Amino acid sequence: MYSNKNAAALTPPMGWNSWDCYAANVTEEQLLGNARYMAENLKGYGWEYIVCDIQWSDPAAGTGEGEYIPFTRLTMDAYGRLLPAKERFPSGFRAIADEIHSMGLKFGIHIMRGIPRQAAHERLPVYGLKGVTCDKIADPFSICRWNSDMYGVRNTPEGQAYYDSLFELYASWDVDYVKVDDICNLKAAPDAPYSARHEVEMIAKAIEKCGKQMVLSLSPGPALIEEAWHMSEYANMWRITDDFWDRWDLLKDMFRRCELWQEHVKPGCWPDCDMLPLGRIGIGFRNPRITRFTKEEQITLMTLWCMFRSPLMMGGEMRDIDAFTLKLLTNRDVLFLIRHGRDARQLFRNEEEAAWYCKDDEGREYLALFNLSDDERTVSAPVKVFKSTAKEAKELWGSQERLLSPESADLPAHGCVIVRM
Amino acid sequence: MYSNKNAAALTPPMGWNSWDCYAANVTEEQLLGNARYMAENLKGYGWEYIVCDIQWSDPAAGTGEGEYIPFTRLTMDAYGRLLPAKERFPSGFRAIADEIHSMGLKFGIHIMRGIPRQAAHERLPVYGLKGVTCDKIADPFSICRWNSDMYGVRNTPEGQAYYDSLFELYASWDVDYVKVDDICNLKAAPDAPYSARHEVEMIAKAIEKCGKQMVLSLSPGPALIEEAWHMSEYANMWRITDDFWDRWDLLKDMFRRCELWQEHVKPGCWPDCDMLPLGRIGIGFRNPRITRFTKEEQITLMTLWCMFRSPLMMGGEMRDIDAFTLKLLTNRDVLFLIRHGRDARQLFRNEEEAAWYCKDDEGREYLALFNLSDDERTVSAPVKVFKSTAKEAKELWGSQERLLSPESADLPAHGCVIVRM
Amino acid sequence: MYSNKNAAALTPPMGWNSWDCYAANVTEEQLLGNARYMAENLKGYGWEYIVCDIQWSDPAAGTGEGEYIPFTRLTMDAYGRLLPAKERFPSGFRAIADEIHSMGLKFGIHIMRGIPRQAAHERLPVYGLKGVTCDKIADPFSICRWNSDMYGVRNTPEGQAYYDSLFELYASWDVDYVKVDDICNLKAAPDAPYSARHEVEMIAKAIEKCGKQMVLSLSPGPALIEEAWHMSEYANMWRITDDFWDRWDLLKDMFRRCELWQEHVKPGCWPDCDMLPLGRIGIGFRNPRITRFTKEEQITLMTLWCMFRSPLMMGGEMRDIDAFTLKLLTNRDVLFLIRHGRDARQLFRNEEEAAWYCKDDEGREYLALFNLSDDERTVSAPVKVFKSTAKEAKELWGSQERLLSPESADLPAHGCVIVRM
Amino acid sequence: MYSNKNAAALTPPMGWNSWDCYAANVTEEQLLGNARYMAENLKGYGWEYIVCDIQWSDPAAGTGEGEYIPFTRLTMDAYGRLLPAKERFPSGFRAIADEIHSMGLKFGIHIMRGIPRQAAHERLPVYGLKGVTCDKIADPFSICRWNSDMYGVRNTPEGQAYYDSLFELYASWDVDYVKVDDICNLKAAPDAPYSARHEVEMIAKAIEKCGKQMVLSLSPGPALIEEAWHMSEYANMWRITDDFWDRWDLLKDMFRRCELWQEHVKPGCWPDCDMLPLGRIGIGFRNPRITRFTKEEQITLMTLWCMFRSPLMMGGEMRDIDAFTLKLLTNRDVLFLIRHGRDARQLFRNEEEAAWYCKDDEGREYLALFNLSDDERTVSAPVKVFKSTAKEAKELWGSQERLLSPESADLPAHGCVIVRM
Repeated sequence: MYSNKNAAALTPPMGWNSWDCYAANVTEEQLLGNARYMAENLKGYGWEYIVCDIQWSDPAAGTGEGEYIPFTRLTMDAYGRLLPAKERFPSGFRAIADEIHSMGLKFGIHIMRGIPRQAAHERLPVYGLKGVTCDKIADPFSICRWNSDMYGVRNTPEGQAYYDSLFELYASWDVDYVKVDDICNLKAAPDAPYSARHEVEMIAKAIEKCGKQMVLSLSPGPALIEEAWHMSEYANMWRITDDFWDRWDLLKDMFRRCELWQEHVKPGCWPDCDMLPLGRIGIGFRNPRITRFTKEEQITLMTLWCMFRSPLMMGGEMRDIDAFTLKLLTNRDVLFLIRHGRDARQLFRNEEEAAWYCKDDEGREYLALFNLSDDERTVSAPVKVFKSTAKEAKELWGSQERLLSPESADLPAHGCVIVRM
Repeated sequence: MYSNKNAAALTPPMGWNSWDCYAANVTEEQLLGNARYMAENLKGYGWEYIVCDIQWSDPAAGTGEGEYIPFTRLTMDAYGRLLPAKERFPSGFRAIADEIHSMGLKFGIHIMRGIPRQAAHERLPVYGLKGVTCDKIADPFSICRWNSDMYGVRNTPEGQAYYDSLFELYASWDVDYVKVDDICNLKAAPDAPYSARHEVEMIAKAIEKCGKQMVLSLSPGPALIEEAWHMSEYANMWRITDDFWDRWDLLKDMFRRCELWQEHVKPGCWPDCDMLPLGRIGIGFRNPRITRFTKEEQITLMTLWCMFRSPLMMGGEMRDIDAFTLKLLTNRDVLFLIRHGRDARQLFRNEEEAAWYCKDDEGREYLALFNLSDDERTVSAPVKVFKSTAKEAKELWGSQERLLSPESADLPAHGCVIVRM
Repeated sequence: MYSNKNAAALTPPMGWNSWDCYAANVTEEQLLGNARYMAENLKGYGWEYIVCDIQWSDPAAGTGEGEYIPFTRLTMDAYGRLLPAKERFPSGFRAIADEIHSMGLKFGIHIMRGIPRQAAHERLPVYGLKGVTCDKIADPFSICRWNSDMYGVRNTPEGQAYYDSLFELYASWDVDYVKVDDICNLKAAPDAPYSARHEVEMIAKAIEKCGKQMVLSLSPGPALIEEAWHMSEYANMWRITDDFWDRWDLLKDMFRRCELWQEHVKPGCWPDCDMLPLGRIGIGFRNPRITRFTKEEQITLMTLWCMFRSPLMMGGEMRDIDAFTLKLLTNRDVLFLIRHGRDARQLFRNEEEAAWYCKDDEGREYLALFNLSDDERTVSAPVKVFKSTAKEAKELWGSQERLLSPESADLPAHGCVIVRM
Repeated sequence: MYSNKNAAALTPPMGWNSWDCYAANVTEEQLLGNARYMAENLKGYGWEYIVCDIQWSDPAAGTGEGEYIPFTRLTMDAYGRLLPAKERFPSGFRAIADEIHSMGLKFGIHIMRGIPRQAAHERLPVYGLKGVTCDKIADPFSICRWNSDMYGVRNTPEGQAYYDSLFELYASWDVDYVKVDDICNLKAAPDAPYSARHEVEMIAKAIEKCGKQMVLSLSPGPALIEEAWHMSEYANMWRITDDFWDRWDLLKDMFRRCELWQEHVKPGCWPDCDMLPLGRIGIGFRNPRITRFTKEEQITLMTLWCMFRSPLMMGGEMRDIDAFTLKLLTNRDVLFLIRHGRDARQLFRNEEEAAWYCKDDEGREYLALFNLSDDERTVSAPVKVFKSTAKEAKELWGSQERLLSPESADLPAHGCVIVRM
């Protein structure tokens, strides 16, 4: 356990991530444009991170058939450390970070665990180590299954030195948040010749050494509940799901995942339901669209994420946001739970319904009732849940008329209410 | 969730269980003899349950080759409800319960989930239901893998009525604690034709209906972490391990299990490390012995169980207890944590060492350092853990001389210290 | 290996089985009616077995919700040996066998491996053994997953004595063929507490001892290819598939199964593609229908079964047979391969096409071309296959016009040709 | 199926392979030295192949810690085709082949499936294709788990062109036998991102195209019985086992493997029990030794391999051979079965004993009795096996005195007899 680890994220991080709208080919202009929008419209509601997702060192990103180009030539320094492709980020990450910081926001980057295959095959020197080349610290059998850029790093002092050199660089860029990919579902390949476990620890150590406080976010998930202690010990957030997209089956399944992880939510340790595929998304995937979620589903999503206290990372292009989506992202009553919720617990769940209960740090009680079925339905708490004898029960999305009582509501398909006493 | 469920076990139950010493053939005399010992010697330390383990309805128990006799004829009433075999429990369970209660203690019994195969094949009537016979509620494909007595009960109103009739009977006996077996490792047989999940719920409901508060304990374990929410919702304690015996490998592995379940310990919900195979055990197994655990290992066991707040069920014949074992069971400082410990967390663990930290509800801090290796070893906390600036660090087992500092100790193989500030 | 085992089935058995049309509730009248039809119309083409399928000892068969009635009371003798229910088979099996034999046909019965649960719970004596009761030879943990009648038999001399007594009874009934169920997919339950392997051996031994030659057929399949040697050693036929019904996906998948088992086809040892769900079926399942297979699919089915030399067991009610189906069952050229085919081998197979080649014992060559796709298609042999320089290529189903050459044909969806040089 | 595939190995190949004695670092001198020994001493007994095993293109082979050096620089031509390292094979493979041919022997080489990672990362051109570079045909996710040299080749026309260029080169070297590695246990990695199935087919096609007849041998095994048809269709031999070494447990387990594969032995298609670790082995592994097999075990090994008709590849350094080993390799009676055995079948097998039976193409019968137990034991055929009424039963290893009858023998632990009538 590292002394300052939890301090980096005492509450769940809130921000914007480039993946859902720009896939592997976001640009400086898009990053900064979204940053500006956030600074002007969302900052006051708690949104603060701007995260540049995968493949920023690939000048050719977006020109291949899929998201990634096999054997693409990445931009790197003489020590095998990836650099942002100048073609896409002409100012470089330090300048971009400065700009974002000047707006009162924070800057995050995505990295793949490991060292570029390119650096290993070219036998580049490892920064700061005499006579050690990248092929000596690369594990040729430790590969990602969906991106061909990297080899895993061996669990040796030389490997640690490489990771140290990486985070020294990121600290020099003034990075606040690092999303490390291909590292979270450690046992996904049970008979594979490696486990990424040691790389989590090496990265945590490198962050502590670098001197700059950074949020450590692990992907892709689903994280293994058996490794909950390990993640709590070394990371600030970890994905409890595969990539989440705008499909009801994925949203419905998140209730199961939140049931599983609810006891593990605490300051500095945030099980992560993944980004919010809301508003205009899919642009970089050549499948531009407005989210396929219905309005009811979007409200259900925001209610669950906030009550559970998942990190919140908006995925859509914010500059194109519509009024409904903006309301979703600026509901102060619901967002209050992200920073001030306490002890959220599932009350029950079956194929048709679910209910959650929590308090906030002012002692107020909350009940959320969810209709998971495809038909209109009355949903009630299983037993009396509110201890409060207050008379006032406020529905936080403005659907007061759905309430039959503070603990019962008529709900449309996939819809919900959240009641505060 | 049932309203009074947690109230039945606001702190981890402490008591004695007949299995470790008497296997499947304990008698009334042995039960009451141990009760008397407890009342006279241990009650003042918090010990209170006397639990009669498996097979009490089998007159022939103990006369077969293994623990269980295939197709043995069980004592039952006209409704397929098992009764204590008169040959072994001449006074009956109500009188035994009364006797135990008169000592200021509580009485527990073991049951297998389900309905006797015998009752199904003889088509006995179900209590209180006209025209419904036991074969109609028995599931012929739901069997236990190691005991041939029972069939699972179908998830129907008639099945619930059977369970209701069972707990009505147990309430009439004034039973305080029920250990339900063959029910806990729900998915152990992933392709088996049944899951016992619904039987947990039916039993919880039957307990609530019966009007008598009873602790619900689930076995055999290991419980599935994926089902943690379900168990918390319906039971008071559940085994997180296979049967635990006096072997170091099993004790060492309990550290892994406690890491896994530590976030799930809370009032009314006690992950259970299983009984304490201490003192004189194995009698009913034709393998009588004094526990094979070394003294160091026994102290390690008690320290882990108490810090983690596992239920404590002594397994050895208490009337033969020696001075060392008695001390283990009566260390007020360590036992204090069972009822007053808070937020116990593993600090780190590897193949050689482990450390745990907790507080008590008076705000005092505790640190336990464990040497899991087979050699003498200095074990230290990974980072500074005590917030307290108190000067006094007391080792609670009287091994003050092992401490190098409040956070570091020289430990013998398999040994430990527990320090309170 | 038992000396006379292979002699019981030097060629693949051909006959009729009651399951596909009458499920678990066939009657004497239906058996004998189909026997008469066979004797008069099909015997000359090689058809000879009349097999009474499952549950003939249950007087109530067919009155429950599913095929089987949990805990139904079976008709049995004083030694736990099942007898035909008088309500359904008033003449008894000896008289029925005699009648069938008088028609020049053979008689087969279905049994479940094991001993009735009823006999074990009632502790009936085992025939011929003093002081041994059925509960002593029954394995309480060895159960079938879909029928509640039986327990497996323990691998002991007493267990063998029980099986011996069974086959002594069947020999006294003059049974020619026994289909043993719940015994073939030995490892289907890898973590189940039993394997049926030893029961195969016990049954083979009992057949040898009984003095009457009987075909031993194993179900339900899919048999494990890893156990091919074991089955060849002890049985005459074994199911290489789950229950086969009138669905194209199951027929298409049979090509994969035949690929797998083709090297194991030899006198006395017949991998079994299961019954022919042709003509009028489903009556006993409350789903009476004419087979859902198209004509092309039926021809494909017969071609594959005959070329592969699977046993042929007609499943439909023969007395209602139509002209097309009758032709399928009486094509002498194709049926010739059942008894006289040699060395059938798959030439190739992919998602759209397959081809098989064989010879007969007169040295003639055969090529079958199959269109497995859902569209019309030209299918050709992958390389030149016919060694013969004969000019005459005869399509055996009368579809000569489909041939582009002896090794190429235009085929409708799911259709085939079989060419003999 | 390719027309000339089976012709390349109408009988099981017999020869010498460098792996067991020289690991990954055999030299030209060692190859030719063993060839000379074979030509002079063993050729007359059917031995003919000299096979150079793995890593011949690595100049540094043998200088690392394990058998393989991660990211080692391989010798290759301008098209990414591996060449023999000059440092180890100064004459080159064409000259070596010529030399071996001049002795009346045949030459074989080992290759890994795929294309060098080095060639992909350096973007070398593919021979004969304009504008196509090796990175375009390499699959970055298809890697071997124990050797870092190669990437799998994509299933495209360009991939096929690469394999064609390889075998064109091997044909120009006059290679007679190719052992392709990392290709045989296709599903060993069920959730890995590749299957090597298509590479088997591409290689078979490339061999057919190259115009030179070559034996195609697949490794490492165990091959999947489910893929038996596929291997028979495309290869001449395939490993039915993991690497086989001089340990009794591995030898005993081969009886199980031979049971499994016995029906698949036929001209051109030889399930392969792996090399003979006899005589002086382990030199290149820094573990030089004389085989750990006892004499009885060596005789058992040779008897099983010959009766089953496995390919025979001597693994020991032949120039150091002792008299006993030489006798093993030159027993004409036993070796006769390699080329002239017919229909070998296991008669029975259990933990203590096994028996096999076969004929030869002169109609003579053979019985082998094996003692698999660790004690002396009488082993007998389960039933009368010899049809012959001949009086003369010859034990082919000169252990006539062990015979109690032609079908029964007293055998030492791990010993056997093989009897010819």
